[in-house]
Amino acid sequence: MALPEKYSQTILDKLSSLLNDRVSTNPSVRDTHGKDESWHHPHRPDVVVFPKTTEEVSEIVKICSEFEIPVIAYGTGTSLEGNVIPHNGGIVVDLMHMDQVLRVNAEDLDCTVQARVTRKQLNEFIRDQGLFFPIDPGADASLGGMAATRASGTNAVRYGTMRENVLALTVVLADGRIIRTSRRARKSAAGYDLTRLFVGSEGTLGIITEVTLKLYGIPEAMAAAVCSFDSLEGAIDTVIQTIQLGVPIARIELLDDVQMGAVNAFSKLDYPVKDTLFLEFHGSEAGVQEQAETVQAIAAENSGGEFKWATKPEDRNKLWAARHDVTYATKALRPGAEVWATDVCVPISRLAECILETKKDLADSFLIAPLVGHAGDGNFHLGFVIKREEEHELKEAERLNDRLVMRAIAMDGTCTGEHGIGLGKMKFLTAEHGEAVSVMRSIKKALDPKNIMNPGKIFTI
Amino acid sequence: MALPEKYSQTILDKLSSLLNDRVSTNPSVRDTHGKDESWHHPHRPDVVVFPKTTEEVSEIVKICSEFEIPVIAYGTGTSLEGNVIPHNGGIVVDLMHMDQVLRVNAEDLDCTVQARVTRKQLNEFIRDQGLFFPIDPGADASLGGMAATRASGTNAVRYGTMRENVLALTVVLADGRIIRTSRRARKSAAGYDLTRLFVGSEGTLGIITEVTLKLYGIPEAMAAAVCSFDSLEGAIDTVIQTIQLGVPIARIELLDDVQMGAVNAFSKLDYPVKDTLFLEFHGSEAGVQEQAETVQAIAAENSGGEFKWATKPEDRNKLWAARHDVTYATKALRPGAEVWATDVCVPISRLAECILETKKDLADSFLIAPLVGHAGDGNFHLGFVIKREEEHELKEAERLNDRLVMRAIAMDGTCTGEHGIGLGKMKFLTAEHGEAVSVMRSIKKALDPKNIMNPGKIFTI
Repeated sequence: MALPEKYSQTILDKLSSLLNDRVSTNPSVRDTHGKDESWHHPHRPDVVVFPKTTEEVSEIVKICSEFEIPVIAYGTGTSLEGNVIPHNGGIVVDLMHMDQVLRVNAEDLDCTVQARVTRKQLNEFIRDQGLFFPIDPGADASLGGMAATRASGTNAVRYGTMRENVLALTVVLADGRIIRTSRRARKSAAGYDLTRLFVGSEGTLGIITEVTLKLYGIPEAMAAAVCSFDSLEGAIDTVIQTIQLGVPIARIELLDDVQMGAVNAFSKLDYPVKDTLFLEFHGSEAGVQEQAETVQAIAAENSGGEFKWATKPEDRNKLWAARHDVTYATKALRPGAEVWATDVCVPISRLAECILETKKDLADSFLIAPLVGHAGDGNFHLGFVIKREEEHELKEAERLNDRLVMRAIAMDGTCTGEHGIGLGKMKFLTAEHGEAVSVMRSIKKALDPKNIMNPGKIFTI
Repeated sequence: MALPEKYSQTILDKLSSLLNDRVSTNPSVRDTHGKDESWHHPHRPDVVVFPKTTEEVSEIVKICSEFEIPVIAYGTGTSLEGNVIPHNGGIVVDLMHMDQVLRVNAEDLDCTVQARVTRKQLNEFIRDQGLFFPIDPGADASLGGMAATRASGTNAVRYGTMRENVLALTVVLADGRIIRTSRRARKSAAGYDLTRLFVGSEGTLGIITEVTLKLYGIPEAMAAAVCSFDSLEGAIDTVIQTIQLGVPIARIELLDDVQMGAVNAFSKLDYPVKDTLFLEFHGSEAGVQEQAETVQAIAAENSGGEFKWATKPEDRNKLWAARHDVTYATKALRPGAEVWATDVCVPISRLAECILETKKDLADSFLIAPLVGHAGDGNFHLGFVIKREEEHELKEAERLNDRLVMRAIAMDGTCTGEHGIGLGKMKFLTAEHGEAVSVMRSIKKALDPKNIMNPGKIFTI
């Protein structure tokens, strides 16, 4: 229990006087807020609060600061490395009421949303204006959570990640002060890049309450395709050559045969159970055609079959829904199982080597782990299908994960391309960053001296 | 004199034993390192040192830390806001010997260079491999300096700024520790984004000694054009509509009539002395043609004349050399004068308003100030032609600059798009960032507690 017993009632009184009935100590509410979509062990927070404004978040954090209580922001709870699990207890700040699109500046191709607006909600909101927001992790995550995790997804190869697409943030600091990290200009050389500092800080430096994002015009033409390969090498080489040639491809996703089997079964599809690429091209009609011809030629030289095209919106949506549902498809491979999802990212020249060595590890293991990835970024995932109560399965997943991560780091890659460090990747941070971790720690201490903001995530103090 | 007199000889002895003859107290060497290309007053450093390695930089900084002496990194000295002026004295670290391209990973489209490699030097080095690096401030600046300033240039509208194009940095911290901020993977969610923290920190948090950069394949087709307009509004509206339509234009530069007069005279050209756009298109042959047709149609509807094309490399180079030489062209307008260059950046929807109000200010002033800008980013510059000894000219430039900057900030823009804060924009930082400046200050204090890294720049402690 992180709420100091002596002051417990005082704290609850203060929260209630601020938020009325938007304070909960109900065990089932607390349990709902004690977990994410990862394999990490849940932990019940002491209190869950539901603010409506940045100012209320600020007052909540001031109370947490006064009594030195952990405070953890919560969006959709879809993190994959335990990032939002309140493993030291404390107060979870569920931002569910902060779900308004505040402004769309169509002329400037940007918008400002409250943190709990989800990516799909935003896209529905702006579609009529001919605009879209491309970043799409598997889950329909909140944009605040996506910023905090430095998330990306299938479109990152063309449109970048949250790192490139957040223009500014409103953040509540550890002492309750509210800052705006930047203005709406597309570029600036005015002082330290606080926007990028908070993007990817996983709630450890402050709570993001508003996000200003870049938007894009919906392309004149979009076409998606599926291509099966006779070999995994052929699929990977197609990705590598496409990127090296500078084709502005919008999506180029790799699914291995195991993943395709799972996807077919879960999403009721009948693609060949082979190593496969899901592709998408954006541009003018002529541009899309030109890109598609280039990539088809590359694929043909690398054991790729015919492209199966999806150009109608409903067909494209079905294809990408199947791609986004891979975690659920993987889970369905084994009733009652969970998925330990991991992700690494390497320079593209090392991608084939990294994936093939990993597949060799898997071939020698008793665990099943479909492979899927944003291969155009050099980023891929394994989903270990485990039963949490089977100690030897957890151990084996850990062993395989360790080998995968250390392999990626040895190839000048990173221990996580998009899931964040959370709890699950903490032990790899020093292997990746060395002395630079001490700089991160100094920043954490400077901005959160009482260590109340999502404490014990990314690194220990 | 920032060198503490009592220890002066000790410090020089330590430096000499480290660097042998690569330590200078020669007055003319010190004078060369006491200024940049701005109007700000020079200040002679106490010592200039010339390290050859990151380790030597580290040892130099350790000496500076021990004796609490200001230490300022120096590349090409081409900053425009006094960023490298050692205005508190101290030791200037000239990185001239750190000018090697260390690695080119053509397959990964990246490279690692020592900090003093200049942008032109890099481009010459990689051209044979079909690669280029797009970021191009006017000067042939060092890539370390460009990273430290968060520089951009004419290609940023398509390729981004240093913010988007630096993959990793090697940095010497204020106590001499050496860190690598990131690995070579294209994306990562592993911990705080230290790369982006040091990009734009202007040497106040550490000295950048190596830079890993994204590279791009030289496009299959490139075509540049010049288009004159009957009105400034027409030129600006062409820019705005081009951006809003999502045309992936590589360059779209605005030069007002005053600037065109200066450019014609300096670069021996004969363009009409009218408000003008310099444009460039990159892509496949068909893609370039498609983009060009779209923008020609937009221009024609906005009082634009015929496009004068430059497709041969030598013609394109001549055109862009003229563009890059605008500062020298502006200086040549008035013998013996200097240029007070300023830059702001606003959301594109406010660009016309911002520029037209600024032109009205200029029309009412006795100062001449050509206007030129990376209009596609909402970023533009004025170059006040002044004589430093004329107090009333400095005052008038300051008045006009204040009005320009506060106007840009009021439009949700920034006080500098690409020149940095240095000394010149310090007074605007709080107007732009408010409470967020205190967060920057906390970070500075945490990483440089003795305030020795380029002290007194960006903000005071």
